[in-house]
Amino acid sequence: MTTVPAYAAPTPKAPLERTTVPLRPLGEHDVLIDIQYAGICHSDIHQVNNGWQEGIFPMVPGHEIAGTVAAAGAGVTRFAVGDRVGVGCLVDSCRTCDNCRAGLEQHCANGPVATYNDRDKNGDPTYGGYARQIVVDENYTLRIPDALPLDTAAPLLCAGITTYSPLRYWNAGPGQRVAVIGMGGLGHLAVRIAHALGAEVTVLSQTLGKREDGLRLGASDYHATSDPETFEKLRDRFDLIVSTVSAPLDFGKYLSLLRTGGTLVNVGAPEEPVSLDLFALIGGRRSLAGSNIGGIQETQEMLDFCAEHGIASEIEVIPADQVNEAYERVLRSDVRYRFVIDTTTI
Amino acid sequence: MTTVPAYAAPTPKAPLERTTVPLRPLGEHDVLIDIQYAGICHSDIHQVNNGWQEGIFPMVPGHEIAGTVAAAGAGVTRFAVGDRVGVGCLVDSCRTCDNCRAGLEQHCANGPVATYNDRDKNGDPTYGGYARQIVVDENYTLRIPDALPLDTAAPLLCAGITTYSPLRYWNAGPGQRVAVIGMGGLGHLAVRIAHALGAEVTVLSQTLGKREDGLRLGASDYHATSDPETFEKLRDRFDLIVSTVSAPLDFGKYLSLLRTGGTLVNVGAPEEPVSLDLFALIGGRRSLAGSNIGGIQETQEMLDFCAEHGIASEIEVIPADQVNEAYERVLRSDVRYRFVIDTTTI
Repeated sequence: MTTVPAYAAPTPKAPLERTTVPLRPLGEHDVLIDIQYAGICHSDIHQVNNGWQEGIFPMVPGHEIAGTVAAAGAGVTRFAVGDRVGVGCLVDSCRTCDNCRAGLEQHCANGPVATYNDRDKNGDPTYGGYARQIVVDENYTLRIPDALPLDTAAPLLCAGITTYSPLRYWNAGPGQRVAVIGMGGLGHLAVRIAHALGAEVTVLSQTLGKREDGLRLGASDYHATSDPETFEKLRDRFDLIVSTVSAPLDFGKYLSLLRTGGTLVNVGAPEEPVSLDLFALIGGRRSLAGSNIGGIQETQEMLDFCAEHGIASEIEVIPADQVNEAYERVLRSDVRYRFVIDTTTI
Repeated sequence: MTTVPAYAAPTPKAPLERTTVPLRPLGEHDVLIDIQYAGICHSDIHQVNNGWQEGIFPMVPGHEIAGTVAAAGAGVTRFAVGDRVGVGCLVDSCRTCDNCRAGLEQHCANGPVATYNDRDKNGDPTYGGYARQIVVDENYTLRIPDALPLDTAAPLLCAGITTYSPLRYWNAGPGQRVAVIGMGGLGHLAVRIAHALGAEVTVLSQTLGKREDGLRLGASDYHATSDPETFEKLRDRFDLIVSTVSAPLDFGKYLSLLRTGGTLVNVGAPEEPVSLDLFALIGGRRSLAGSNIGGIQETQEMLDFCAEHGIASEIEVIPADQVNEAYERVLRSDVRYRFVIDTTTI
């Protein structure tokens, strides 16, 4: 069995350490990817900590993967050796259900196969991007346009598509006022993408600490949610609010910022249920919605859109042996705005 | 000051009793309506009981009003004496805000004037439909088509528009699967309207007690929510769910019945906040929404639609002196499906 050097959590909540894990054999439709960069997503930490469900250990996190094709199976038609490619949150799905056929593989009725902390169709555990290499079906592999550097593109594979998809689905564009809650890994990309789509963008952050960055990235307005006046001033203002935070929000307050018919969509979410006064929805034909990454075709569309508009993540590149320290800093929101592991250091 | 015989609650939570209340003088653009029927809406009971907010007493409830024009102000152009007319939940609004100009008077930025338990622009209390007459601005008066009997049409003015508006807004129609939660005053009209719009309709009711009625009114399917199997069988099934109940629901269970991208819209709502797991939204790009009656133009459209499709409420007509008993029966859900007061008995 071929193995590959990787950083893994050996058991739940344990620090990550260098190890080797099995590398799936190259199938007819697979590509072998030399990983160069892997973004650190907050959900990596959740999963290592069993925050959402019982995890599969050892766990190699990482679903913001950028690299180049090192080998291609005999049946591969879409990629060639040397191509610049990315892998996001999912590496397979049933391909036959209504959602898969509609390009909504993330909502596959039979459950998509997550890039890590999941089991492949043959029952083997999947291992993620904190590794030197990965083998992925070409149909779940994305092309990273030449205009995007691999390091700053890596976070687009999760943080980018997670914000792009709802912005497109709920029609962010010219004449629309969009608010982004949270100015972190997801939030700073939501600002850039919403701005590039032509919407008027406001950031709602706990403090004004990142205001300058927000305005530089395309926001025309930046407000502190710790200031009660914010909720007075912005009442009935937005067509769409994208919440990127996982802290429990006072939804009544945030929903009151929506115009009649507006939508507050959650791409981050607290682990615990939230309390909601339904009159906050009824009073303005408002919607509280959720969105989860995007399908494969839409992810490619997002990468092409970002290349066209010069959008990528603001990152801090770290060597692999700093991953545990980086996790602590992510938990303190002490990163502008995404850690990216240089996986050649593994 | 002209007065009019009416049934009013003299104080909060008190039984209704026959009395007289002031009748607004006929203004240039007003019509005087001889009320013939007034539906009893669950919200009448809420308001008499101060369930939502501090009420204005004496309170004459009633916002499902049907009658004929008895007199018209000098400037009235849309109605003539003898015309069959209706009045719903609102009798005025600012007419200048974005929502008013968009025909969403129910979401008037300056607050619409409710038909009762509110104050008119001059500060006078408004009195509702449990009365012999009412004076209403012609712009907030609806035309009841000849094809609709006044008694069965009355409940359309609240229960009808409350269900029609979200069904239209969220595109209930051919190829769409719509579920209606609750088979009461609102629910039975939601079934008829959704069916007439061409959707495939399922009723979700606590028991199968009203199944025959549901199927007769247009549902193709009827399930008991007290049966846990219902939630297994109907998983991922509906494009749209309209909840007409005010009991707090386990939203996680109901949201799981939505297909990817589906919406659960609340037109009934519990007085207390509900608990919601946001992953139920994120997992299927689902929305939890609210809707509140409809605008004046849409209410007229609904009445015309109902006339065209032979839709009206199933009712039990009562003399005015049975109103308190009717309230008790509404609270026990012991009515099929709407009490309508014959207001000529006041």
